[in-house]
Amino acid sequence: MTHSDVIIVGAGPCGLFQAFQLGLQGLRCQLIEALPFSGGQCTELYPDKPIYDIPGVPVLDAKQLRDQLEKQLKPFSPVIHFNQTVDSIESNAEGSALLNEPSNEPGLTVTTSAGLTLQSRYVVIATGAGAFTPVKLRTEGIEKFEDRQLFYGKVGIEHLQQKQAVVTGDTSAAIDTAIELASADVSTVLLHRKRRLQIDSDQQAHIAQLQQTNKLQLINGKILRAAGVAVLEALEIQLQSRDKIMLPTNTLIARLGNSPKNNKLEKWQLATQHNLINVDPTDFSTNRDAIYAVGDTNTYPGKRKLILCGFHEATLAAFAIAKRMQSCQPIHTLYTTTSTVLRQRLGVS
Amino acid sequence: MTHSDVIIVGAGPCGLFQAFQLGLQGLRCQLIEALPFSGGQCTELYPDKPIYDIPGVPVLDAKQLRDQLEKQLKPFSPVIHFNQTVDSIESNAEGSALLNEPSNEPGLTVTTSAGLTLQSRYVVIATGAGAFTPVKLRTEGIEKFEDRQLFYGKVGIEHLQQKQAVVTGDTSAAIDTAIELASADVSTVLLHRKRRLQIDSDQQAHIAQLQQTNKLQLINGKILRAAGVAVLEALEIQLQSRDKIMLPTNTLIARLGNSPKNNKLEKWQLATQHNLINVDPTDFSTNRDAIYAVGDTNTYPGKRKLILCGFHEATLAAFAIAKRMQSCQPIHTLYTTTSTVLRQRLGVS
Repeated sequence: MTHSDVIIVGAGPCGLFQAFQLGLQGLRCQLIEALPFSGGQCTELYPDKPIYDIPGVPVLDAKQLRDQLEKQLKPFSPVIHFNQTVDSIESNAEGSALLNEPSNEPGLTVTTSAGLTLQSRYVVIATGAGAFTPVKLRTEGIEKFEDRQLFYGKVGIEHLQQKQAVVTGDTSAAIDTAIELASADVSTVLLHRKRRLQIDSDQQAHIAQLQQTNKLQLINGKILRAAGVAVLEALEIQLQSRDKIMLPTNTLIARLGNSPKNNKLEKWQLATQHNLINVDPTDFSTNRDAIYAVGDTNTYPGKRKLILCGFHEATLAAFAIAKRMQSCQPIHTLYTTTSTVLRQRLGVS
Repeated sequence: MTHSDVIIVGAGPCGLFQAFQLGLQGLRCQLIEALPFSGGQCTELYPDKPIYDIPGVPVLDAKQLRDQLEKQLKPFSPVIHFNQTVDSIESNAEGSALLNEPSNEPGLTVTTSAGLTLQSRYVVIATGAGAFTPVKLRTEGIEKFEDRQLFYGKVGIEHLQQKQAVVTGDTSAAIDTAIELASADVSTVLLHRKRRLQIDSDQQAHIAQLQQTNKLQLINGKILRAAGVAVLEALEIQLQSRDKIMLPTNTLIARLGNSPKNNKLEKWQLATQHNLINVDPTDFSTNRDAIYAVGDTNTYPGKRKLILCGFHEATLAAFAIAKRMQSCQPIHTLYTTTSTVLRQRLGVS
């Protein structure tokens, strides 16, 4: 079990800046992130899109914003637990005792989908529009093959029967997966919906080579039906030409992208309104003791879902937590331009 | 009389970003600034000091922040009225009629120390720690010579009797003023308190040249007394060596720097607490209709005097004003990454 002062759920822009502000307050934190990388919507949905309203930054793209926030956070280097979502957040009476702290301090235990159990005194929810999870196929009845012959996550090549697979999707991840399998001598079909795939020059070179050796085949069409009763045997495909074909396969890997879901708020016993967490706008606390919420996932009178508002919220939440960490003694506002303490924490003194 | 949608009082970081956010909302504004340049405390008090907590900007100095905010604001290029402070902000029943708008819209008339009269529908106070005004000499009785023989602002050389002057202060402005006068053939003494003046190489070259021609003399000491009854005749100076001398002069120009003062809040009939303007944290409105306050000058539960909080406040105030501008119809949150309207306003479509 790992201890820290604060667990931040979500490593999007607000989660990253939350960690920075907690670092300035001298607190240690860990982050939990559904995706295999930080940046949230910025990196998952629109990495190359320019943003014009980050104060003091006339223009930068979303991936650059993530990179800049990570760079800013570097002095504090918190652990980020990637590829997992939070299952439960339980208040434990024993929590504070475990942390050797005064008994009036809160204790929280957080468990994740990857089986981690983390302990902290405070939790900040910064899940934005929600944890990004793979978009699923909507083909009727196809869900019964999931985890046996249909995969949305990473699949070890040793699991592929007869070294054969169909990869479906128009995403860069779909292209990369198809290239990876074909390169490992798996006879691969990349089934894409859009007429033109966005393929970068590096991927293009690989694909051309793999097509020559007949390891990779590209088919433009959509899945109409999954054939097979207990076992997936083939896919009926409607081609771009509207012709139908049967494509025999026993392994289907779908890479349709990720979409955000905030479907745990109720399970976490948080008071919500239209699936947004109600917070007190003076400190961004929720209805649950020691749990805060910042960024697009929260709501309060006047709320605007803008990154710069999330930065403010994360800052006030950090002050509120710091105040409680030191038995509610007032926390003075220190400035990074002048405070020796802050500059030492930042490693620039 | 000049009309605009919004008048912003103060062109510090928050005032500049307020203008940017109002620009995104499609509103026209003007700014009024006490100093001859924008940037507020950042440029007046600590231009070269690094700031580490602007979100997404690991480090930049205060002057760079000002420059970046000005660059960001460029698409909207609002007029900034420099070198003046706001005297009065009056609600005028006729205001709305003057602006040819529905009669339920507010109208405000703002007058400045430079004699400007501006009309707008809304005012945002972004005065930070206050309007920067010249630090005054504390020498007993010296105030009676003010504006006749003692000057804190710019003085035309034609006003100098007998082409002679004492400039006092350790600031870069004091050095520049002394160089300027001496270069215009005025016999000048630069009286400085600190043993070592911070002189840049450019100033150094000028000073050396002017000292050679006896036009400029540097004296290290402090004013003990102003001699003269109706007319200033001389200054008694205590030198660094602790010796005392009488320095004859009929013109004293003090350049002691500027310090911020928020001494108009009462005159503007704003409800305050410890000389900070009380605002509603959902929209940053004050007790006066159509007047908002953002940044270090306001207060509300949980308030922290941080630049990034001011950016958030300016943003919500802009939304609140935009909503009232269109008869309180809801304003949707648009994104600069995706909104055609915002991109057109920014000139990047």
